Amino acid sequence: MTDKRVLTGVTTTGIPHLGNYVGAIRPAIAATQEAGVESFIFLADYHGLIKCHEPEKIHESTLAVAATWLACGLDPEHVTFYRQSDIPETMELNWIFNCICAKGLMNRAHAYKAAVQANVDAGQEDLDHGVEMGLYCYPVLMAADILIFNGTHVPVGRDQIQHLEMARDIAGRFNHRFKELFVMPEAVVDETTAILTGLDGRKMSKSYGNTIPLFEGEKKLRKSVMKIVTNSLEPGQPKEVDGSTLFEIYQAFATAEQQAAMKQAYADGIGWGDAKQQLFELINAELAEKRERFAELTANPSRIEDILQAGADKARKVAHEHLAQVREAVGIRVLK
Amino acid sequence: MTDKRVLTGVTTTGIPHLGNYVGAIRPAIAATQEAGVESFIFLADYHGLIKCHEPEKIHESTLAVAATWLACGLDPEHVTFYRQSDIPETMELNWIFNCICAKGLMNRAHAYKAAVQANVDAGQEDLDHGVEMGLYCYPVLMAADILIFNGTHVPVGRDQIQHLEMARDIAGRFNHRFKELFVMPEAVVDETTAILTGLDGRKMSKSYGNTIPLFEGEKKLRKSVMKIVTNSLEPGQPKEVDGSTLFEIYQAFATAEQQAAMKQAYADGIGWGDAKQQLFELINAELAEKRERFAELTANPSRIEDILQAGADKARKVAHEHLAQVREAVGIRVLK
Repeated sequence: MTDKRVLTGVTTTGIPHLGNYVGAIRPAIAATQEAGVESFIFLADYHGLIKCHEPEKIHESTLAVAATWLACGLDPEHVTFYRQSDIPETMELNWIFNCICAKGLMNRAHAYKAAVQANVDAGQEDLDHGVEMGLYCYPVLMAADILIFNGTHVPVGRDQIQHLEMARDIAGRFNHRFKELFVMPEAVVDETTAILTGLDGRKMSKSYGNTIPLFEGEKKLRKSVMKIVTNSLEPGQPKEVDGSTLFEIYQAFATAEQQAAMKQAYADGIGWGDAKQQLFELINAELAEKRERFAELTANPSRIEDILQAGADKARKVAHEHLAQVREAVGIRVLK
Repeated sequence: MTDKRVLTGVTTTGIPHLGNYVGAIRPAIAATQEAGVESFIFLADYHGLIKCHEPEKIHESTLAVAATWLACGLDPEHVTFYRQSDIPETMELNWIFNCICAKGLMNRAHAYKAAVQANVDAGQEDLDHGVEMGLYCYPVLMAADILIFNGTHVPVGRDQIQHLEMARDIAGRFNHRFKELFVMPEAVVDETTAILTGLDGRKMSKSYGNTIPLFEGEKKLRKSVMKIVTNSLEPGQPKEVDGSTLFEIYQAFATAEQQAAMKQAYADGIGWGDAKQQLFELINAELAEKRERFAELTANPSRIEDILQAGADKARKVAHEHLAQVREAVGIRVLK
């Protein structure tokens, strides 16, 4: 194995929007092109089941997410690209980890504590009201996702750093109790990656309803861009880039020169309509070809399935061999 | 599938003794010979990991338990006899069940509550002190063990009835939320099966250190029988069968006539030495041939492995097909 094995999980409970593209997809795909890096990217469909009990949504999202990443340049020849549910070894490791993971560790997980706090706030007597085991056990599965492949680097948001610490804790316990089979994974928090601003100026997020669609067509893209909140300054009046949602989004797609030019245009009193048109053109230039690839891919789901199966074959070779060592270490052995 | 599919799990954390034989193995094997019954018997090695972190013990116990059941007459042509860890579909179903199982259900499980109570009694501030996730999540895995095969009847001790209720709860939730894919399993508590008395008059149990070995050879068997606690009545003095540990053990192996004859011998003042010799001969007559088979089997572990693999093949056909339906129902689907 190479020195650096980057492992990225993508949940399959929604359709990727422009914020996901800028904040996660684009940087992750760029990272796969670095030298000396081996990349594992997987569709975390079994994590999706925790929150989503709508089969059609899980299914549609799996297709959309896979097609999006491929359309955006993920090279399945170079990246091990697979679906979590095609790696049963992960689920076996998940159980083995259960047997050495302190329950107290899970009690301290953020997501679970937030659910308990919500019950406290709502005056619920049963603090576990509405909490399902999937939410509670999630960090153990995440540890298995990473450690089955001995991922060394895991790009995560700030809220996921704790889960990486838990994965390290579980790996350490196993290594100590049975055998040194797990590498300690490191959380990689990229502070430089843009968190894209949404139409209303807040972080772009499905839950705020302020997203710009990624691959829903040129018309919808333009319509969304035209909805970006601006102030009431007229054309000809100088405008500030600081605090301008439009400029913030522009920055995520523009070169340094383009940014400087737009800054000048603001000072020169560009009209909001013109500025939006320029932003639309900039985004569209970056997405047009990808959008076509996305359309081709989603028109041929079985082609994507083949890619995922080929990825699963690659991944399972690693997973199978590693799990065999783990089973041997804990005493699950062939009789001979 | 037949109407009645009996599913029995056997943990692999010890070497079977005479109490296991009388209380579990003998009746379970007899039950597999009933007409119209399909039997699944499995070595629950992944449950064994919950309590046992000694790889050699897990391994040795797996061999000993498998050899014992086969030596005692389990017919692998007729019974689906497999190792839990050879059925990865169970672990996948385990996770799917996590996603629909209320955490509150696990909070009420006996084994977990007992661990919490032990912490309360010990004045521990952290009530989850020493509790690992395996213990806590155990009932979900047990539900998956049963429901992956749609077992209809599960022979259990009284302490396991609650776990069967939990399996039914989980099955019902899935059926309601997604699709009617699971049969409600029934707990079968056999009140008539003898709980064998140990050397000291208490229930025979490894934890009391009062067991009689099953297949450790004629000499050890005799030595153990000779240690059975009796009173100080001399030969010639009439003896009571009520409360006699020796007679209680005798009953578990004797026909009605043999029991009547021994009762008479007690009344006639049989000496304890003679009575013990008769008991030894009775047990030995039942075990001698089985003991030989056990020795042959354990001398050829790879033969047992072959049997377990053949069983796993049979079991996985059922498991694989059932899991495919479950995956489809929750939205984990092939893209096409």
